[in-house]
Amino acid sequence: MSFDKRIYNFAPGPATLPEEVLKAAGQDILLWQGLGAGVMEVSHRSSAFMNCYQDALQNIIDLMKIPSNYKVLFLQGGGIGQNAAIPMNLMGLAKSGPQADFIVSGVWTQKSVAEASKYGLARIAATSKEQQFHCVPDRATWDLSQDSAYVHICANETVGGVEFAQTPDVGVIPLVADISSNIMSREINVSRYGVLFAGAQKNIAPAGLTIVIVREDLIGHAASITPTIWDWKIQAANDSMINTPTTFAIYMAGEVFKWLKKQGGISAIEKINQQKADVIYGVLDQSSLYEARVHRDSRSRMNVTFYLRDETLNEAFLAQASQAGMIGLKGHKSVGGMRASLYNAMPLAGAQCLAELMREFERRA
Amino acid sequence: MSFDKRIYNFAPGPATLPEEVLKAAGQDILLWQGLGAGVMEVSHRSSAFMNCYQDALQNIIDLMKIPSNYKVLFLQGGGIGQNAAIPMNLMGLAKSGPQADFIVSGVWTQKSVAEASKYGLARIAATSKEQQFHCVPDRATWDLSQDSAYVHICANETVGGVEFAQTPDVGVIPLVADISSNIMSREINVSRYGVLFAGAQKNIAPAGLTIVIVREDLIGHAASITPTIWDWKIQAANDSMINTPTTFAIYMAGEVFKWLKKQGGISAIEKINQQKADVIYGVLDQSSLYEARVHRDSRSRMNVTFYLRDETLNEAFLAQASQAGMIGLKGHKSVGGMRASLYNAMPLAGAQCLAELMREFERRA
Repeated sequence: MSFDKRIYNFAPGPATLPEEVLKAAGQDILLWQGLGAGVMEVSHRSSAFMNCYQDALQNIIDLMKIPSNYKVLFLQGGGIGQNAAIPMNLMGLAKSGPQADFIVSGVWTQKSVAEASKYGLARIAATSKEQQFHCVPDRATWDLSQDSAYVHICANETVGGVEFAQTPDVGVIPLVADISSNIMSREINVSRYGVLFAGAQKNIAPAGLTIVIVREDLIGHAASITPTIWDWKIQAANDSMINTPTTFAIYMAGEVFKWLKKQGGISAIEKINQQKADVIYGVLDQSSLYEARVHRDSRSRMNVTFYLRDETLNEAFLAQASQAGMIGLKGHKSVGGMRASLYNAMPLAGAQCLAELMREFERRA
Repeated sequence: MSFDKRIYNFAPGPATLPEEVLKAAGQDILLWQGLGAGVMEVSHRSSAFMNCYQDALQNIIDLMKIPSNYKVLFLQGGGIGQNAAIPMNLMGLAKSGPQADFIVSGVWTQKSVAEASKYGLARIAATSKEQQFHCVPDRATWDLSQDSAYVHICANETVGGVEFAQTPDVGVIPLVADISSNIMSREINVSRYGVLFAGAQKNIAPAGLTIVIVREDLIGHAASITPTIWDWKIQAANDSMINTPTTFAIYMAGEVFKWLKKQGGISAIEKINQQKADVIYGVLDQSSLYEARVHRDSRSRMNVTFYLRDETLNEAFLAQASQAGMIGLKGHKSVGGMRASLYNAMPLAGAQCLAELMREFERRA
């Protein structure tokens, strides 16, 4: 298949971005703000870029209602980078040696545990492995330690399609959440968290930008082995520019933030995101062909995973989707099946188009 | 000043990129290769992106004549990130405890020493500090240790405008070189080096991509605290995709590599780079207004630094340059003065235009 116009891209990340943002970027990379140069060619120290950075910063603060005692950092290295950076920055807070608690709800938190183990004791305080990671671990089963510096969760497991319905209560221990795949997709109370972090390549920007939102009292405790580019204290004191930042990705994030404000902000996009998810889960719940394995109370609104009960039909399903202008639906290789990623830039019409194809495919099967 | 067409951008990085590459990218970010999506929106696992990655990889191997016993990695975190990653990956090779030698020729190698000190003994084997970093340290003064895992140099100091004229001989000790600001600007014999690394934001691509070229026998010695995204062995075994790579920057790098091949490759661009530098240094050497402080045998062809002897004229010089369509000429704040960065994408006409302005400014001064 070859397409000469934009189609519906359900890829899990890098992922679809708002068309109007891409169109403007297509101009700005050649000539930006009357500078006689493109946006990715100007110095990060220039007033033009610093204004762009400050606008992006203010817009994320506005959109997420980030309290004034938090810092927002624009870093590099993705979520897997922060899997190392977080224990480096925080584990020293534990009084009886470096230690943190992990709530394991899928492959991403498994990776987080493995990485954190390089820097201290990564305790698995709860896991849904016995439930094949089809749910978040029941809060009643969490065995939290008062000796841990923080509790790490993945708010939305992109591979499994498992999302926390609410922010869990962990008392006074700082809650650290990987929100790579649901940042800005729903309203959250930032003050309930110690640290929020996200790779930008799903809801915000091209790959390469990592956003870290950290409460000020958690800054300044980095271990001596922490690389400078990940030392939150140093980056917070230097506008995240102790190294050359990913200027183009920050520009793109800023444009996406403006776009999101025009859509009515996070509360408005959250309603649409719920509608999109409802449309797909609605098909799954009425189907005998498809199977949704994730427990209802843990269903992700960003990554809807499902299986064809007859897996020999997988290729035909994907081929028909592609013919109908829908790509990126193949599930992660580690779990198979299908996955429809419904990030902010996916319109409701895209989800409806997919639902229609799913029903039609089932009728003909 | 506001410009509605492209002008000459002498910024040190992020820096000017080839106009034809930017124009094509402006299209590709909306629709790429008939996929119905833009280049930064498709999965790094897609065949389209994997082909793009493989092409970029082959083209850098061809252009730099990289021997088959080297791996090329596309990472994140910039040169300052590798300042941490390199000691993490290599210092363990030293038999009597983690240790490496550093040849300090400016602010970048000073940063490298400070960062490496977190992971072992960072020995200053030579420094040109007493020469105000206006030259590379004389090879005869280098006090190399046989107990060091490697020798670290910065092939071109972007801030000072100090470049190694030749690859120094360090015997059997692996030579590690930061080539962030002169990668692909001149032919080098890769086999003389153990590791070459570069942030891409000067000669290659937008900020966010870090290229590491490492000899295979130097892979596999990472300390246990090495973050996964910087573990060369893991990244080499995973096409640099153990985390989501900076897909758009890799695409851009690949397009710049193709552009460079069309220009005749590195040997051809090196001749032009020499001409560009000669044009500016020629003005400096005949001037009583301007002063070139870098010693002749250490003059950078990428970053020509100079001073107006009467520094009260600085603002007037920059203003006239801007009026004539030339930006990015202000020197780094730590050293002051002026700096003309003449990376591959700066045409000879740009250097000639600057030389003309410099002469004209001197005539009128």
